[in-house]
Amino acid sequence: MKSAIFSVGTEILFGQITNTNTVYLSQQLNRMGIDVLYHETVGDNPGRVKEVLSRLLSEVDLVITTGGLGPTQDDLTKEMAAEVMGVELKIDEESLEKIRLFFEKTGREMTENNIKQANLPAKDGFILPNNAGTAPGCVFEKDGKIVVCLPGPPREMTRMFEESVIPYLQTLTHEVIYSDMVRVFGIGESQLEYMLQDLITGQTDPTIATYAKEGECSVRVTSKRNTLEEAREAVEAMAEKVTAIVGDYIFSYHDEDLKDVVAKKLMERGLTISCAESCTGGLFASTLIGVEGISSVFERGIVTYSNRAKMEELGVKEETLARYGAVSEETAREMTAGLKKKTGSRVCISVTGIAGPDGGTAEKPVGLVYICVDFDGKTECKEFRVRTVNRNWIRHYSVLLMMDMVNRIIG
Amino acid sequence: MKSAIFSVGTEILFGQITNTNTVYLSQQLNRMGIDVLYHETVGDNPGRVKEVLSRLLSEVDLVITTGGLGPTQDDLTKEMAAEVMGVELKIDEESLEKIRLFFEKTGREMTENNIKQANLPAKDGFILPNNAGTAPGCVFEKDGKIVVCLPGPPREMTRMFEESVIPYLQTLTHEVIYSDMVRVFGIGESQLEYMLQDLITGQTDPTIATYAKEGECSVRVTSKRNTLEEAREAVEAMAEKVTAIVGDYIFSYHDEDLKDVVAKKLMERGLTISCAESCTGGLFASTLIGVEGISSVFERGIVTYSNRAKMEELGVKEETLARYGAVSEETAREMTAGLKKKTGSRVCISVTGIAGPDGGTAEKPVGLVYICVDFDGKTECKEFRVRTVNRNWIRHYSVLLMMDMVNRIIG
Repeated sequence: MKSAIFSVGTEILFGQITNTNTVYLSQQLNRMGIDVLYHETVGDNPGRVKEVLSRLLSEVDLVITTGGLGPTQDDLTKEMAAEVMGVELKIDEESLEKIRLFFEKTGREMTENNIKQANLPAKDGFILPNNAGTAPGCVFEKDGKIVVCLPGPPREMTRMFEESVIPYLQTLTHEVIYSDMVRVFGIGESQLEYMLQDLITGQTDPTIATYAKEGECSVRVTSKRNTLEEAREAVEAMAEKVTAIVGDYIFSYHDEDLKDVVAKKLMERGLTISCAESCTGGLFASTLIGVEGISSVFERGIVTYSNRAKMEELGVKEETLARYGAVSEETAREMTAGLKKKTGSRVCISVTGIAGPDGGTAEKPVGLVYICVDFDGKTECKEFRVRTVNRNWIRHYSVLLMMDMVNRIIG
Repeated sequence: MKSAIFSVGTEILFGQITNTNTVYLSQQLNRMGIDVLYHETVGDNPGRVKEVLSRLLSEVDLVITTGGLGPTQDDLTKEMAAEVMGVELKIDEESLEKIRLFFEKTGREMTENNIKQANLPAKDGFILPNNAGTAPGCVFEKDGKIVVCLPGPPREMTRMFEESVIPYLQTLTHEVIYSDMVRVFGIGESQLEYMLQDLITGQTDPTIATYAKEGECSVRVTSKRNTLEEAREAVEAMAEKVTAIVGDYIFSYHDEDLKDVVAKKLMERGLTISCAESCTGGLFASTLIGVEGISSVFERGIVTYSNRAKMEELGVKEETLARYGAVSEETAREMTAGLKKKTGSRVCISVTGIAGPDGGTAEKPVGLVYICVDFDGKTECKEFRVRTVNRNWIRHYSVLLMMDMVNRIIG
């Protein structure tokens, strides 16, 4: 099946928003085996919406539109789609009632123009309920062509797509897709691809593909079968093959972030944690504290950016700093030991490094990072040379290294 | 002048990358007074590239393409543009030499297929040098139509656009654009727009427009005149009018982030700073430490997430916590006082609040935040009710509030 994604909205042409809807929809459609041939965007202009829609329908089987379903005069995607498809719109009482209730619940007045949002195809199509906003979406089906109209706000669009559009598209392909994302840390994408080469080259179903994002990599495993059960089993069997090759780097089989995996383990086992940060400057604490419920185990974070702070807060010896420098394994060890003594947390982790752009030397270059973690008295210290993309990349990657060390030591 | 932005790349249709080039180009073109009518994307498919380019040229005066200039078989944007425009391509020796040098410098071998990157229009157009990569761009000009071919990698594309395309487009419009971004914190976009209504309604040149992003707002002031001097003066005069109305909320006239404004002031004046964070969990420290050079003034950060940490690290009294709660003005005051005593930093700031989603009560709801800042003995404490979008929004907005309070107290 061939498809196109058609975004409507003047704000996109002004560059006021980044079109992430298109990225999401492209990923989803490709994963379902539906080819995406075009992305197009026009403003809230009835003539151009109609012209582009007609043309796309002459070239593909399925057009997914986003935007232009709201209550204002400018919102006209649905109306133009109805015209192009030759389908009549009628007020749908159930949808209208839902919109009325939405306004009642949020305590706002429902103005007249909101009624048009309930103008929907009575036949040659059906309604897609909006469970995250007011404007319903809809599907037009006629003469072998399909137009799916979705709202513009990403939260509403993705929810509608997952709840209603995926199941619908699966009925068309008569196949069920099951997909999982194996998450990996500690090797680059090219190395990962190299190691999985035989699996990638020989793939038919399940298919596997590697992705890289901000220092982490993923392997997507997707299977398209007649039943969900079959597809899931095929994905799991392939995930086992992937594990046999790169198992040591895998931290999640279900697309979780490393911080979430670590936080979940800490919370489930009631392991208290404290951290002492130099170069990352609070980013480790801040990242972990971004996880809901972490207050049950996160005890304390100390940003000891100056030497004085390292001595006063953590009891790092002046002699150690003078002899080995603030960025050294010895300092990292004393930071962790001091933190342990002070907090008694079961997991204590410290980091010291050179984030740059200044402060590096030939012996201790920018990107040099020491991390030391202690778990119930078992201590591990490591030296890293982080790729010197820029200051904030070094900080970000150091936090991933810290998460990885915590994840491995608590097991 | 009417334009379209045409992206070429199968990876975009797969959803593997987000098309930020289009956002950048849309902003730049609109700012120069060039209307953007279409965004289009196709894969590395010669037929579709040609078809879309022909059609776009029948509807607009200027098409800007990105992607497909590289050395591989798949890269064919330039070749298709030459065909559609009826312009001949020839090997440009100077460009070829630059590509050779690039490979020499980076110590890689230059394979044969790289030569095609120097295949460029000899007449009816000109070459755009690539000072950040290998593939040159080019402009085709014929019969009143223009195609500008730019490389896909954002770093190469933006540099080429700024160095070569903006000056070229300005010769077409015979006008010079000057634009500045006035940054505002403390009022929402709708209120900002309301306050500036008279200026916005009456605008011809300079034009003014409001933007909102992650809790901060901006006012873009743009003027298009015959000389840069005239345009700059017009922008400055309008910025003064904006200041007369919303001056109290302005923190930058030149598109700086609030954290950068605060960090710059601290560094320039050598004001040391320490922070004690509860709900933000290190995000204030981490944000400030993201600024280069901050180590000269950032002394210490303490993430006192537990009550025990607040008492041990900052000397908050057990009685205060029991009587007023951890989220109270009294606790915030004692946090700041304790931090001051401990660090002696000239600026000491503390925050305590409820980031949610749990932990709120009727009396102390999620989003309640207390911030207390001390500068050389002058103390200010404030209570805020942050909009409860979600946990990380509350943390993010609290950090902005903290930056704002530091910015105001140091003056």
